[in-house]
Amino acid sequence: MAATWGEAGAVEVLAFDIFGTVVDWHGSIAREMAQLHPQVDGDAFARAWRAGYKPAMARVMSGELGWTLIDDLHRLILDDILPGFGLAHLGEAERQHLNRAWHRLDPWPEAVEALQRLKRRYLLTTLSNGNIGLLTRMAKGAGLPWDCVLSAEVFRAYKPDPRTYLGVAQVFAVPPARVMLVAAHHDDLAGARACGLRTAYIERPLEFGAAQPKDVSPRQGNDLHARDLAALADQLGC
Amino acid sequence: MAATWGEAGAVEVLAFDIFGTVVDWHGSIAREMAQLHPQVDGDAFARAWRAGYKPAMARVMSGELGWTLIDDLHRLILDDILPGFGLAHLGEAERQHLNRAWHRLDPWPEAVEALQRLKRRYLLTTLSNGNIGLLTRMAKGAGLPWDCVLSAEVFRAYKPDPRTYLGVAQVFAVPPARVMLVAAHHDDLAGARACGLRTAYIERPLEFGAAQPKDVSPRQGNDLHARDLAALADQLGC
Repeated sequence: MAATWGEAGAVEVLAFDIFGTVVDWHGSIAREMAQLHPQVDGDAFARAWRAGYKPAMARVMSGELGWTLIDDLHRLILDDILPGFGLAHLGEAERQHLNRAWHRLDPWPEAVEALQRLKRRYLLTTLSNGNIGLLTRMAKGAGLPWDCVLSAEVFRAYKPDPRTYLGVAQVFAVPPARVMLVAAHHDDLAGARACGLRTAYIERPLEFGAAQPKDVSPRQGNDLHARDLAALADQLGC
Repeated sequence: MAATWGEAGAVEVLAFDIFGTVVDWHGSIAREMAQLHPQVDGDAFARAWRAGYKPAMARVMSGELGWTLIDDLHRLILDDILPGFGLAHLGEAERQHLNRAWHRLDPWPEAVEALQRLKRRYLLTTLSNGNIGLLTRMAKGAGLPWDCVLSAEVFRAYKPDPRTYLGVAQVFAVPPARVMLVAAHHDDLAGARACGLRTAYIERPLEFGAAQPKDVSPRQGNDLHARDLAALADQLGC
């Protein structure tokens, strides 16, 4: 298997989904809440904040909202959910600080070392709906060794819009089949596959927390299925 | 001086011009030509190629050409100048390979280590008219440790268009005064200054080769003036 992917003419660019795939948004947000507001159920708070994410992007993609960075969508959702958690009293500075929690997400334990291995052979880019500033500050804080930071912000479209997947191939001037999307979400991988990209599914059974385990059983269609990024590096012979 | 720039509220982002400031385009192109086509005057060839750069960008910014990546502008200029150097016979594959010389430019000798020092304290981004693919492959080959790769391609405008300088501040959600442009070209620095960015001039007396030394004497208006990037790191207390 390893040789297939390392050969000339094969995959050159690995494009990574970030939230859930590389970083543990649920655990990180829950831990921030436990520190800042220990009276709140951080587990439920993290899930509520994230649950607003797809509907908010849909409002942008439908044209109801103009183009909006994820930092700003996170803030809209935050303002929406705070009252339900007894935090309606939070002031502007506290809300801004809390919103920046998405810049401070912790990587899954094996991620940094695995990315360093993959980086020796592949060009590593983000391909996230998160905005460039968010992704860059997160990488700097967490030590994520990207070669390039690509985002929905560059293509002015959110995944799974084809402009994002094809945009990566265009930026690096390679055919789509030389790009592999690495993600923990089947809808994202399906979007990439429809554009001709290769795909690698990463199991993240605890993405939504231990109270809500995710079905990570293999599905047809992906080129690779790996327990985590270290296992992906093994499969790619890095 | 050092303390001024390191303080909270001061510069957070260093944005780097690339061609001439971080990498030695003239020496690198001349060396490639000496290897590939030793009968050609590589020194003159490098200067002729680069001389077509600003006029080509002007054709795009005037609307005569649609939005065009620098890789494609480099190729237009290359096709123009090859006959004058007795290379009209080069085929498509040879032209493509030669055009990619801009992805393989060597950094100035002190650049990589100086950037590593600067990276400990600042967020380092490119701000080049070069396209993202070019900048990313160059960084990967040369070991340039960017936190982020920003380009005219992201803003769909070339420097010195204000959209590029203000775009960096917007991407990182900071006031323009918290961004410092680092460049070896006064017109670039003047454009940044007009947008409220800080500026650091880097002397590169041999940017155009030893046969055509550049006047690098200090000019008014820049916040810093440094011999090279190591001297900049010294001045910034890194």
